[in-house]
Amino acid sequence: MRIEILTTGTELLLGKVLNTHGKWFGEELFKLGMRIQRLTTVPDGDAITQAIRESVVRADVLIITGGLGPTSDDLTRECVCEVLGIELIEDEAAVRSLEAFFAARNKVMAESNRKQAQVPVGADVLPNPNGTAPGIYIPPRLNGAANCAVFLLPGPPRELYPMFRAEVAPRLVALAGLANPPGMLELKITGVGESDIQEEIDAKLAEVPGLEVGYCARVGEVDVRLIGDEAAIAAGRDVTLAAFAKQTFSEDGSSLEATVVRLMSGAGLKLATAESCTGGLIANRITDVPGSSAVFTHGFVTYANEAKRDLLGVPQEILDEHGAVSEPVVRAMAEGALRVSGADIAVAVTGIAGPDGGTPEKPVGTVWLAWAAKGQATLAVKQIHPRNRKDFKLAVSQAALDGVRRLASK
Amino acid sequence: MRIEILTTGTELLLGKVLNTHGKWFGEELFKLGMRIQRLTTVPDGDAITQAIRESVVRADVLIITGGLGPTSDDLTRECVCEVLGIELIEDEAAVRSLEAFFAARNKVMAESNRKQAQVPVGADVLPNPNGTAPGIYIPPRLNGAANCAVFLLPGPPRELYPMFRAEVAPRLVALAGLANPPGMLELKITGVGESDIQEEIDAKLAEVPGLEVGYCARVGEVDVRLIGDEAAIAAGRDVTLAAFAKQTFSEDGSSLEATVVRLMSGAGLKLATAESCTGGLIANRITDVPGSSAVFTHGFVTYANEAKRDLLGVPQEILDEHGAVSEPVVRAMAEGALRVSGADIAVAVTGIAGPDGGTPEKPVGTVWLAWAAKGQATLAVKQIHPRNRKDFKLAVSQAALDGVRRLASK
Repeated sequence: MRIEILTTGTELLLGKVLNTHGKWFGEELFKLGMRIQRLTTVPDGDAITQAIRESVVRADVLIITGGLGPTSDDLTRECVCEVLGIELIEDEAAVRSLEAFFAARNKVMAESNRKQAQVPVGADVLPNPNGTAPGIYIPPRLNGAANCAVFLLPGPPRELYPMFRAEVAPRLVALAGLANPPGMLELKITGVGESDIQEEIDAKLAEVPGLEVGYCARVGEVDVRLIGDEAAIAAGRDVTLAAFAKQTFSEDGSSLEATVVRLMSGAGLKLATAESCTGGLIANRITDVPGSSAVFTHGFVTYANEAKRDLLGVPQEILDEHGAVSEPVVRAMAEGALRVSGADIAVAVTGIAGPDGGTPEKPVGTVWLAWAAKGQATLAVKQIHPRNRKDFKLAVSQAALDGVRRLASK
Repeated sequence: MRIEILTTGTELLLGKVLNTHGKWFGEELFKLGMRIQRLTTVPDGDAITQAIRESVVRADVLIITGGLGPTSDDLTRECVCEVLGIELIEDEAAVRSLEAFFAARNKVMAESNRKQAQVPVGADVLPNPNGTAPGIYIPPRLNGAANCAVFLLPGPPRELYPMFRAEVAPRLVALAGLANPPGMLELKITGVGESDIQEEIDAKLAEVPGLEVGYCARVGEVDVRLIGDEAAIAAGRDVTLAAFAKQTFSEDGSSLEATVVRLMSGAGLKLATAESCTGGLIANRITDVPGSSAVFTHGFVTYANEAKRDLLGVPQEILDEHGAVSEPVVRAMAEGALRVSGADIAVAVTGIAGPDGGTPEKPVGTVWLAWAAKGQATLAVKQIHPRNRKDFKLAVSQAALDGVRRLASK
């Protein structure tokens, strides 16, 4: 099934907005075992009509986003109907739904919004609980010679995403003639590189009948996506976890920081952080998670040596003798954070983010990490992440959070 | 001049990679006073040939990225030559340049890399100092009937960006017949909303002859882009600064955190942060800036009330009486951070990031900010940012950093 995506909007071509629809549709369709054959972006205006005219003869399915709003440059409905030779009429149910949307917000509907209830004759109206623009589905039988199924969807993600999942995905599955649409499981793994993961499991996964596998490498994280029926996914999961059970932190799309907050919150544990080279990123990631205040109490960003000494009690002699990036210092930081905060677990990092500050013995990218926990021996490790400054910080924060996860899940 | 961009690569359509080329090209062309008319993404393979065939008859300029590598699925050169009916031949200078690239890295060139020296007859080879794939420029006169200028550029940003600026932009200016390409100035403004900025200056900017204006709104920041000749930009700058001199923090693309680090570093000032609701984001942004260790010494992430009390000396009575999100608490936080750290300036924030924790008097989005500086009266303000959790944190960090900037630039 040839699927094309057409994203419309002048703002997408002026460098003002990053178009994330392509990646998002790619992910969603991949979960359905489908692929995008072409992604086109055009400005508002005649270019839309031209692009639709070209697509409907190439593709089996054309998904168009944007241009369903109430203003004069929102012309997607008109362009599609012109190309397909279908009349636009006002849909009574769509008018009532629009009126209800405004009434629920104590507002009167502007006359310009009536335009949003215009629907091609015979098309399905796709409800939009999150905005005023309903989606439209024009089945292939309505398109005469073109024989292309056309979806018109709103551009804003908060309207688009739920509408796609509720209204578009099931219709795509039906169009593709799939009795049982494939399911997907995403295993998030940290602490192992993509090539090492592939070397260990790729050949074994290839032997699982009906299983499609995708890898997505990020800084400090690899997502393994298993697509297929229930049995294939279960077999693929077994293969993956047999090799990487300890490194797998999520099977439901949760981020590492959300996993840490969930585990610690469930166990009634408190966390403190002592950061030098990550400069607050670990605390920032933890506090991105709603409800993290139940877990996270104290964060120390001890960028200067004086801060390590005065806030965390790292002895000046150790700093002088071993330097800030050293095992004795990172241990003293973690234990100091645990003591001062009264938390159950404390994590500490100290390293060289670059671009300057490296030496032959301690090159840019060197980092010491330590985890201290009540009643347990403190653990410290050295790692090297030769990356740019921001990616270095991200990689170190990932390793730091993963150590906390392992302690919290014991 | 009709410009189309064609980005190629199967990985761009599987949801694995976010395609940022469209936004980047849009920005770069906008600076030249040009626009993208269409952006197309296709997978590797036959789809490339088909897309090129369609583009060269629609467009005056076609810019293609990707598929110039040494492997078997890198076929962009071949596809272009097939469509345009031009022969590919090995370019001696390109071979020597490839050999030099590998020699400089103490490596022997693989035979497969020779393919990268294949060039359409009569085309220009565009040097690639950052990789092995040279770019290719096929002038319109070589294309027979199509009369479209075609650029073949490498996909990776670190190779693409410098090549575009050095080799492509000047050729585009020449193709457009521009004697003096327009310049651009970007003024970054914070603390005022996009609509307020437009209301104040848009009509006045419209009166400046030959000036093109673009606005880009981000969380807590609006970029005003002035495009034109020197005189037009100077006049537009005068109009903008007459209204928003105090709110303009950058004229060279620098971020707010980089501006703060530059100003404080230049003045020999030290900074400390005391964060509750931003959870380390302010410290994290500051430490994203290379060289920030000269400025930033102590960061406190006092998420729990006990941390505010024990680390910053906020009196328990104030916390009990006024609550954590209050003017007395934020003042005590800023003054405590200044005292404990010995820094010259300290900034503190405490607020309700949500989604829970709001009350009728202090709804989600409420925040108190304070700035303390040696020998000056502490300043405190209340703001409301009714946004999602991450955007709230970002908006608050922006306001906090801007206050530091103003203190540091006094």
